[in-house]
Amino acid sequence: MCELLGMSANVPTDIRFSFAALAKRGGETGPHSDGWGIVFFENKVVRAFHDPSPSCQSKIASLVREYPIKSKSVIAHVRKANRGRVSLENNHPFTRELWGRAWVFAHNGQLKGIKKWPLSFYRPIGTTDSEYAFCYIIDQLRQKFPKEPNSKKLEKAIEDIFKNLREIGVFNALLSQGQFIYASCSKKLCYITRCAPFGKASLVDDDLQVDFAQETTPNDCVTIIATKPLTKNEEWHICDNNSFLVFKDGLLISQNCS
Amino acid sequence: MCELLGMSANVPTDIRFSFAALAKRGGETGPHSDGWGIVFFENKVVRAFHDPSPSCQSKIASLVREYPIKSKSVIAHVRKANRGRVSLENNHPFTRELWGRAWVFAHNGQLKGIKKWPLSFYRPIGTTDSEYAFCYIIDQLRQKFPKEPNSKKLEKAIEDIFKNLREIGVFNALLSQGQFIYASCSKKLCYITRCAPFGKASLVDDDLQVDFAQETTPNDCVTIIATKPLTKNEEWHICDNNSFLVFKDGLLISQNCS
Repeated sequence: MCELLGMSANVPTDIRFSFAALAKRGGETGPHSDGWGIVFFENKVVRAFHDPSPSCQSKIASLVREYPIKSKSVIAHVRKANRGRVSLENNHPFTRELWGRAWVFAHNGQLKGIKKWPLSFYRPIGTTDSEYAFCYIIDQLRQKFPKEPNSKKLEKAIEDIFKNLREIGVFNALLSQGQFIYASCSKKLCYITRCAPFGKASLVDDDLQVDFAQETTPNDCVTIIATKPLTKNEEWHICDNNSFLVFKDGLLISQNCS
Repeated sequence: MCELLGMSANVPTDIRFSFAALAKRGGETGPHSDGWGIVFFENKVVRAFHDPSPSCQSKIASLVREYPIKSKSVIAHVRKANRGRVSLENNHPFTRELWGRAWVFAHNGQLKGIKKWPLSFYRPIGTTDSEYAFCYIIDQLRQKFPKEPNSKKLEKAIEDIFKNLREIGVFNALLSQGQFIYASCSKKLCYITRCAPFGKASLVDDDLQVDFAQETTPNDCVTIIATKPLTKNEEWHICDNNSFLVFKDGLLISQNCS
C-alpha cells in the first residue's frame, strides 16, 4: 500500500504542513519507503519533484518541505512497492499532456489484469499497474473526446472509468488537470475542508502544529484529501467505500457511490 | 535569444560546474532572465526543475547547483522571452512521452509561421514557438513510426525534420530521449568533449575552477554542448552553420551539414 495526498484550494496555498506528515510516513512513521513524489499545478502546467529514496531522508523532500511553493492543486504520494521495482520511473504522481494541459495521477492499490486492457496512444514508461491505469484513463478520455468536453461530460466519463477500475481491484486514486481533483475511494480515503473561522491543527506524525488563522485570509478555502487523517484534533470525513468525489476551488462539489 | 546547455556522458556525471555558468547567464552575466529549466535523464524518465524567476536568483536553481544529481544525459536552458509570456508553462526544456520513454527538447531562435504546421496528437501547453516545434517533431516521428524504429532510421527522420525547421527560422536545438542527444545548429552552437587525461577548466562567467582529474575516472567521457563556450582555457568546437549532430555516451557519433 501507498499513501496519497491531494490539495484543492481557491487561492494558491502552501501545502508544507500536510506534506511534512506524508514525508514522515515515507520510511519513518510509516513503511512507505520506496520513493515519493509531489506535483504542484501552476495554471496548466506542473512542477514535479520525485525521488526513489525514502521521503524521510530525501534531500529533494527537504527542499519541498522548506520551499513555499503555492498552488491551487497538488497531488503527492509515498510508495511502498508492490508491483514494479523501486526506481524513479515507478514513482507516482505520473504526468501526461491531454488537450493542451498537464494531467496528473497517483494511485494506491493493485489492479489485477490491468495490463491486458488496450492502450491506443499513451504508453507507460515504468512498470507499475498504476501508471498503466493512468494511461488507460487518459486514453479512454481522448478516444471519447477528441476535444476537451464540458466539465459535466468529463466528470461523468471519469466516474465511469473509475468505476470500471474499482471492479478489478483496489483503486484509491487522485486525478487532476489543475482545476478539478477527481478522487476514487475503493476503501481508504478521507478529506477535510478548512474554511474561516480557521483553527489550529496538530499533525499525527510529527510534533508540528499550525495555526491556520495566521496563514490564511477569511475567504480562503482548502480541502486536503489523504489516505488516512493527517491531523489529530480535527474531524476528517471518511469517504464511503466505492465512491467517486470531485473537488474544485477547495470544496467537494460532487460525490457518488456505485 | 536564449542559451542552451546539453551534456552527454558514458557514466552518470555531475553537471553542476557547467550549470553554474549557465545559471549566471540567467540575469547576471547574461540577459536571459525570463526563467530557466534543467532536465536530468534517469534511465527512461526524467527529473525536471523549472522556474520562471531568473536562474541567478532562483532558490530551485541553488538546489540544483548544490545537489549532485548525476545523469548520462542532461538538457538545460535559460530564457530571454521573445514569443510567449514569462510563465512556468513557457519554460524549456519541454517533456513528452513517446514510445514509452520521456523525450526532452530545448530551443533557441524563432520559427516564423510554425504555428500553422499541422499537429495530430501532441498539443503545446504554453504559447511558445519552441514547444509547438517540439510537438511537431514528435508528432511527425510518431506518425512515421508507430513503433520505435532502429536508431539509424530514427536519426535520419530527426535530421530531416530539423532541416525543415531550420528553413523557416533560427533553430538551434537539443532533443534527447536519454540515450542520444540530437542537436541542430542554425548558427550558434558549440561543444567540447572531455576524456582522459583530464585537465583543469575555468568558467567564463564565474570565479569557479574545476580539476576534472579529481572528479573522474580514466574511462569517463563527457561532452558539453552549449550556445557559447562556458570555459575560457579549453578549445571548444564551433558547430558549422546548418548542421545536425548526434551525441551518445559522451561522444559525437554523427555530423552532417545541409
